Amino acid sequence: MASQEVPKTCKVILADTIAKKLLAEVKETLATIQGPDPRKPTLVAFLANDDPAAGQYADWSKKTCEENDFNFDLRKVDKEDLEEAVLAANRDDAVDGILVYYPIWRSNQQQDRYIQETVALSKDVEGLCHTHLFNMYHNVRFLDPPTNQKKSILPCTPLAIVKALEHLQIYNPILAYGNRLFGKTITVINRSEVNGRPLAALLANDGATVYSVDITGVQLFTRGSGIRAPRHQVHDKEGWQLRDALPLSDVVISGVPSEDFKVPTDLIRDGAVCINFSSYRNFDGPAVKEKASIYVPSTGKVTIAVLLRNLVRLVANRQPPEGSSDAAQKARIEAFKDD
Amino acid sequence: MASQEVPKTCKVILADTIAKKLLAEVKETLATIQGPDPRKPTLVAFLANDDPAAGQYADWSKKTCEENDFNFDLRKVDKEDLEEAVLAANRDDAVDGILVYYPIWRSNQQQDRYIQETVALSKDVEGLCHTHLFNMYHNVRFLDPPTNQKKSILPCTPLAIVKALEHLQIYNPILAYGNRLFGKTITVINRSEVNGRPLAALLANDGATVYSVDITGVQLFTRGSGIRAPRHQVHDKEGWQLRDALPLSDVVISGVPSEDFKVPTDLIRDGAVCINFSSYRNFDGPAVKEKASIYVPSTGKVTIAVLLRNLVRLVANRQPPEGSSDAAQKARIEAFKDD
Repeated sequence: MASQEVPKTCKVILADTIAKKLLAEVKETLATIQGPDPRKPTLVAFLANDDPAAGQYADWSKKTCEENDFNFDLRKVDKEDLEEAVLAANRDDAVDGILVYYPIWRSNQQQDRYIQETVALSKDVEGLCHTHLFNMYHNVRFLDPPTNQKKSILPCTPLAIVKALEHLQIYNPILAYGNRLFGKTITVINRSEVNGRPLAALLANDGATVYSVDITGVQLFTRGSGIRAPRHQVHDKEGWQLRDALPLSDVVISGVPSEDFKVPTDLIRDGAVCINFSSYRNFDGPAVKEKASIYVPSTGKVTIAVLLRNLVRLVANRQPPEGSSDAAQKARIEAFKDD
Repeated sequence: MASQEVPKTCKVILADTIAKKLLAEVKETLATIQGPDPRKPTLVAFLANDDPAAGQYADWSKKTCEENDFNFDLRKVDKEDLEEAVLAANRDDAVDGILVYYPIWRSNQQQDRYIQETVALSKDVEGLCHTHLFNMYHNVRFLDPPTNQKKSILPCTPLAIVKALEHLQIYNPILAYGNRLFGKTITVINRSEVNGRPLAALLANDGATVYSVDITGVQLFTRGSGIRAPRHQVHDKEGWQLRDALPLSDVVISGVPSEDFKVPTDLIRDGAVCINFSSYRNFDGPAVKEKASIYVPSTGKVTIAVLLRNLVRLVANRQPPEGSSDAAQKARIEAFKDD
């Protein structure tokens, strides 16, 4: 209950706070898996475009890797040499995870897609191979049913948002695992194949009613009345626009890659939770702080923490080295089991 | 995120679970306050009506007191002797808290009110004296500002609901203390002076948008846009009925003292949290479990736990015995400071 003073009503949560918690968990899990004879995991990142945002993301990734005892090997290649370079990394036992900065062929997205599928499933740290994506959309958590010892990898940015929502206690741990967003209404602005659509699917699979919004319109992602369906269904909301979804939403998540786009503050529900995952500021900061209960201005650092989390998950999925202790084997199976 | 199986969608939380947690905290706090020379606190309860519900509540209270090392002294008196009996208990140093079972004069509620005011403020374990009620409505947490060492007592049933909502993580601990319901919409069905109206006020003071519903209509309790007001304001919602408030509500709390009343399940929002504090079942259990995310079928045991919590708070408010340790004095001041 409230005391005499009126505290500031909007809590601003920085990505750094969430990322630090995740990184501590990543280091601890890696140590348990590797036991007394650790080897630094190696992440190879391919830069084949000249996008300054990709360059900055690479710099941050390198810094975070080095601070947390991971090897980060940035390889700048011509896009025509990219496929061969990825195949070489696939074959190299010293490489634990492979990352590619997209987009590359801006006029031919199918070719980007081709490269995503070229990355070996066992090194797909971004969760962009079809098997990983299929499992995510179908709410399948393991690569090896019914043994269920190898976790399927989830795409970094959507998983980063999930981890942010867990940190913000929007996931209610009182509810059964897998249903912890039941009762929450969430708008996701952006429906890209890499970010917005998988995010809407993940949140709906966890029980939320999700309005997925882009310039073509609004789609409803939901497990239906009483969330009785085992995974989400998608329905077009004919005639709906952002302005119809916003006032209904407990949580507003925006990732529009444009300097000009702003979420209209006047349509946001009083006390909503607002999260920006665009590299631009999709919310009017001062205005949103007068209305939201929680505001997360950026999530880039959380995404990088999740990248390392996925890398450790890939290490755990590999055959354990001969002579691994029982404890290390158990740790591999249990690494990050709660997602 | 969800696993393959679809878990049961509605989590039923029993009052016993919440009560046990509170009672453990009560015992621990009492031990810290009293130090090495403990004395069992004594609660005197006056039964001056022949309501079977009051009799059952008295039996439960006695059992809970005895299990938790409190003295429970039930005094059955004729209602014409009640005032003198209360005054005698007020004067008796061996009595730490006084409880009266209401209603007594069913045709004259003002006389019940007169008795409530007769109980000494320092022994008002139910928080029904005007000073306690005034402080609650005005969001004032202490009896002795600006020293702020003596906590004001909150009424048991409303505080029990608050404690239930904290247990259910509807209070978001990420938010600033005093604002932890910001963004939540709550319907409270019952606007009695003892339960429903104080409950609506407490929840609105903590940041919620509260629709308070009774047979006369709907009132909105809120701290306004951006919860900038220091305490709640009340507005009549002309023409509104329960059916207007229910579909908007994340949480539905019902305390209608009638066997016939049922909250219409079809108007409850999918994934809502439903709490019954009536001694009758105000929800259609099987139906609500198909729709709610969390269902709390009763709260009586939580109320009794809160009664003992208030009693310990009254013990902490008393002048410490001579020779009390510094640690015990500090514990007195800090007992249950978080509400």
